Amino acid sequence: MTIAILGGTGPQGQGLAKRFALAGVPVALGSRDAGRAAEIAAEISTALPGDAAAITGHDNLGAVDAADEMVILAVPWSGHNATLEAIKGGLSGKILVDIVVPLKEGDPKKVDMPPEGSATEAAQALLGDDIPVMGALHNVSAHTLNDLEASINCDVLVCGNGLAPRKKVMELVEKLGVRAYNAGDAEAARCIEAITPILIRINISKAVPFTHAGIKIWAPEH
Amino acid sequence: MTIAILGGTGPQGQGLAKRFALAGVPVALGSRDAGRAAEIAAEISTALPGDAAAITGHDNLGAVDAADEMVILAVPWSGHNATLEAIKGGLSGKILVDIVVPLKEGDPKKVDMPPEGSATEAAQALLGDDIPVMGALHNVSAHTLNDLEASINCDVLVCGNGLAPRKKVMELVEKLGVRAYNAGDAEAARCIEAITPILIRINISKAVPFTHAGIKIWAPEH
Repeated sequence: MTIAILGGTGPQGQGLAKRFALAGVPVALGSRDAGRAAEIAAEISTALPGDAAAITGHDNLGAVDAADEMVILAVPWSGHNATLEAIKGGLSGKILVDIVVPLKEGDPKKVDMPPEGSATEAAQALLGDDIPVMGALHNVSAHTLNDLEASINCDVLVCGNGLAPRKKVMELVEKLGVRAYNAGDAEAARCIEAITPILIRINISKAVPFTHAGIKIWAPEH
Repeated sequence: MTIAILGGTGPQGQGLAKRFALAGVPVALGSRDAGRAAEIAAEISTALPGDAAAITGHDNLGAVDAADEMVILAVPWSGHNATLEAIKGGLSGKILVDIVVPLKEGDPKKVDMPPEGSATEAAQALLGDDIPVMGALHNVSAHTLNDLEASINCDVLVCGNGLAPRKKVMELVEKLGVRAYNAGDAEAARCIEAITPILIRINISKAVPFTHAGIKIWAPEH
């Protein structure tokens, strides 16, 4: 089951491509520039062990076409809506997994949410109700994704309208060795996307002994 | 340094009163009904070890007057604004710590945010800029607070306009033996308050092996 990662040449996209390929999931890496995608795909693949799944490069719409069901949107917020407009025609029968956080221009310690409430809700409004849009993987740092010697220190909150696609995305995400939680419908993205700037603030702060913080759902002691 | 806890006869308020008294912080418990507050204060105090700090009962405005600096608002969302109107006159020179989550009427797995964006922002708008309003302690379950044999399985994200009062609240919160993080200005409450219904959903879900979940900022492995 091949997945697409759009904006796959960025740090988040590359990290996800490596992690999914290592987990045995073939990846169609998409970019506005198919040549650049092919180059990055080859570069990443070469650095992975021989038993990793294939990573191939495409333009964004070509990557969508190559995906069996799941299309991960990993572009910067500034390219979110334009990329969706460009690939909308190819999404029929597929699930869009939106991992984009609307960070505020010039201040990544804040969000600047769109009128729809969140990136996930904006994507759902743009694509229409026939294409399920699921929010996920917002809070995992690109640095962590690319540091293949470390496991991912972040639980993943998955939201979106429709329980069946939400469960499919949770299953996909858990292939990365992380715990995924059902966080409810798309409106929950207003919260989940906005956790990222709080983590960025914590990372930047001199008050804490670590960077690249994640979040964890914390079970009680008894 | 006595603190006030308004809505202190509810489960969240009672749990916080116990925890703060055990940490050596005297508590003025406030309620609309001063008699009820005195009754609960006596009941709680009796059950705590002799070296715990004092817990006294008052009406809400009396509790505010008894507080040296910090006033914790722990009423249900339905009483949030009315309680603030009732105590507004007494808050001069003090910090309001708003722990209220605007849970949706009839569906605690969702928030129903006020036009201001969050409870914290609504309180700040209602009280005016001279009274600092800090959001904190939203994600700690009442059950956990009242289970004194367990430590609190929840980090605390503190937000509000003004770094100095934010740091004071972080210091107060850390007396409970939890880790507090600076989450930025009041707008971050839109995120932080909305984490609670996600935890409630996880608690209700049969998919997880625990209830009374908290959140933790998760450091990377290396």
